[in-house]
Amino acid sequence: MTADETAHSAPSVRPRSAADQTLALLRADLGPRVDTRPTALEAARADKSGHAAEGTPLAVVHAVSVADVQTVMRIATATRTPVVPRGAGTGLAGGANTGGGEISLSVRGMDRVLEVRPDDLLAVVEPGILNAELNALLEPHGVWWAPDPASRAISTVGGNIATGAGGLLCAKYGVVRDAVLGVDVVLADGRLMHFGHRSVKGVTGLDLTSLIIGSEGTLGVVVGATLKLRRLVEGERVTLTALFDGVRAAAVASAAVTASGVQPAIMELMDATSLAAAHRLLSLPAPPEGAAQLTIQTDGPVAADEASAIAEILREAGGAVAVAADAAEGEALLAVRRAMHPAMETLGTTLIEDVSVPRSALPDMFDEIARIEREFGLVIPAVAHAGDGNLHPNFVFEGPEVPPVVWEAAEELFRAALALGGTLTGEHGIGVLKRRWLIDELGDDQWKLQRDIAHAFDPLGILNPGKVFGP
Amino acid sequence: MTADETAHSAPSVRPRSAADQTLALLRADLGPRVDTRPTALEAARADKSGHAAEGTPLAVVHAVSVADVQTVMRIATATRTPVVPRGAGTGLAGGANTGGGEISLSVRGMDRVLEVRPDDLLAVVEPGILNAELNALLEPHGVWWAPDPASRAISTVGGNIATGAGGLLCAKYGVVRDAVLGVDVVLADGRLMHFGHRSVKGVTGLDLTSLIIGSEGTLGVVVGATLKLRRLVEGERVTLTALFDGVRAAAVASAAVTASGVQPAIMELMDATSLAAAHRLLSLPAPPEGAAQLTIQTDGPVAADEASAIAEILREAGGAVAVAADAAEGEALLAVRRAMHPAMETLGTTLIEDVSVPRSALPDMFDEIARIEREFGLVIPAVAHAGDGNLHPNFVFEGPEVPPVVWEAAEELFRAALALGGTLTGEHGIGVLKRRWLIDELGDDQWKLQRDIAHAFDPLGILNPGKVFGP
Repeated sequence: MTADETAHSAPSVRPRSAADQTLALLRADLGPRVDTRPTALEAARADKSGHAAEGTPLAVVHAVSVADVQTVMRIATATRTPVVPRGAGTGLAGGANTGGGEISLSVRGMDRVLEVRPDDLLAVVEPGILNAELNALLEPHGVWWAPDPASRAISTVGGNIATGAGGLLCAKYGVVRDAVLGVDVVLADGRLMHFGHRSVKGVTGLDLTSLIIGSEGTLGVVVGATLKLRRLVEGERVTLTALFDGVRAAAVASAAVTASGVQPAIMELMDATSLAAAHRLLSLPAPPEGAAQLTIQTDGPVAADEASAIAEILREAGGAVAVAADAAEGEALLAVRRAMHPAMETLGTTLIEDVSVPRSALPDMFDEIARIEREFGLVIPAVAHAGDGNLHPNFVFEGPEVPPVVWEAAEELFRAALALGGTLTGEHGIGVLKRRWLIDELGDDQWKLQRDIAHAFDPLGILNPGKVFGP
Repeated sequence: MTADETAHSAPSVRPRSAADQTLALLRADLGPRVDTRPTALEAARADKSGHAAEGTPLAVVHAVSVADVQTVMRIATATRTPVVPRGAGTGLAGGANTGGGEISLSVRGMDRVLEVRPDDLLAVVEPGILNAELNALLEPHGVWWAPDPASRAISTVGGNIATGAGGLLCAKYGVVRDAVLGVDVVLADGRLMHFGHRSVKGVTGLDLTSLIIGSEGTLGVVVGATLKLRRLVEGERVTLTALFDGVRAAAVASAAVTASGVQPAIMELMDATSLAAAHRLLSLPAPPEGAAQLTIQTDGPVAADEASAIAEILREAGGAVAVAADAAEGEALLAVRRAMHPAMETLGTTLIEDVSVPRSALPDMFDEIARIEREFGLVIPAVAHAGDGNLHPNFVFEGPEVPPVVWEAAEELFRAALALGGTLTGEHGIGVLKRRWLIDELGDDQWKLQRDIAHAFDPLGILNPGKVFGP
């Protein structure tokens, strides 16, 4: 040991690790909002995908203001510390999972509605508000925000924006991309940017609002949003179900509904395994062996006429149709679909996939799933947002780690979706779980271009590193 | 003269200018598609804004294939020659104006519809097809592409995408951004990229499709598009007009219609000067002195009910309402609005502005226009897409050059729109005519970030240089 090292080892001037120095800077500026309790750090490692990042996060920062987020990013830039933005942690691709030495930057506490303008059909909100809470606050104003991921009761608007979320109503009412006018974003270096506009139309400069939507925390931290609202839909909703002999028949029938030009608000498909599992979870009588089900809802001024037309198409396609007597019975029918994810969790650990194909390719995609089940000796329960061609095949297995055979089957699933003109992820995002296939869909050149664009926002690469464009 | 120069001056080895060499390269690969006729070069200098670029373009290249576009961009990159992509040249911001030494790259000849899929509600098209021609081809399939700029009979789909065009139907049926699933783009270096997807949902990587929409030729050349279609709207359209004592009363009435929640397909506002000029052009009886008019159309299954509800709101707001007896009379009423631009051209040279404000701010924006008229001693005839808050104030003057007082008044107009929460351009784009105000809206930091993003696409800066981000 040299004299110099000895001097530095003296208690009064003990050198602190880089991590300790970063923590000290955070605590100096943010005090109790810097959380290093082991339970908080452990929770920040994972999202709802079941996948967890390696290592222990440096800290969770519970931001309550834009200034807090700016402070975190300035310190992160100064110290070159990776930051993982986080809402409610309900993601399904590992996009908010925080690894060793990284800061989990939670905006869940920024949950105010700053402005509601029914006359301009817009609302200005902070990112941490839950989707369902926002809609409950909007309802008395006669308006709603249309994106409705199945997680809407537990997922945040900021998270919906970061992933470009979809949901059940998308074919008729659009996805997040269709429902955001502007975003406020804190960049990696702490600067606050306002992208977008408050008017229906606006083409001033590049559309950076859309670039932020679905960017999964790689370009900046969403700290505010100007949302495009819709008027509440008037009239009674009508809900109906149709049972089919198998999933292919149900998929063909859903394609026939789409091709007819009658636009349901919701059209969900459950295959036999999913349907049976949901019935078991809800203690309902078991469905017929091998039966798949379509659950359809119409709304608006001609909902009843549309439901009748759809029922006729479904019967012609061989479906056993049941129309709900009233709204309560309709909700009960939809509850079966909503029970899908908890029902899967009763079967084991699940890897929920999220491929999306052109609507007419839905029957072929179900054929591909059946082929992959046979070839890999797996059961892959699947549901689909049949109105928009987005499928959620579920791989179910024991234990916390995805077995190699499941990844191999998933890879085959992705290839099949791409071959049918589809895409890797319809609404969950790339995160860490699909990053190794991103280049297969984008190609080398586009992958590199996207990385270069991210670099323009975050030249040091401290924002959610390893996600989307990771190894 | 040195011996060396003498040698080079000999006819057989005369040194060619850089421009000549570039032309020779273009001709070698593209033959007769390289057009240097003086009339073609002159036409490429201007668009429908009336503004023309300085100098003489190097050539107009009439591309007929993706390969042609790639060839042009490879030669342009090799020779560092600026390229200005062009459709039908109907832009109103000078975005396609081609200056001295630049290549005008026309994709107007690439006008095929490659695929129509009514079942998937998509079409794949080349960029040069006219909007109205596309819709005529789609109609037998029971589908349409909703963006409907007033120029739809003469403007291309590629140009609509490049500018992020809007139109009359936007409040109900959306803008171009809402109606494109994917774009094929040739980058500055000639590489072909496919952005986006064919499915309703898709969040794989960054949304580069949206980034291209409205990028005005600064990021790449759009050589193909996968368009999101809608089913034709069923039922009879109902058209009505309402005359008001002045433009403010008409604007307040239109805001009342929007606030009522009844959604017209079209809601157009003409101020007194515009209305009188259009009536003169069409040889119609003069409207009452000072009268402004709303022209409204409803469509869909409850069009008649909606028209009745709107008529009641307009009467309560002091309007003299006339409902068209049938579709033909409805079209005649709308023809008055459609005559606006030719009517303005009878008054002199026009500078058409394009500010957009939140819908509730429309009356205040008309007050601002009246104030600017008084302060600058100008008459500024204005129309508005009142359903979405997009105004087109027209500055009318003599001769080809915009007088300084008009630019000063326009600047005051932009400031007023921004102060009301609006934006510089709702649907025409920045081009050259608004580039000096871009930084006022974006701020220095965002302006620079947008430039950095453009640089990732076009590191040499050869794509439409000087437009949008120009001096």
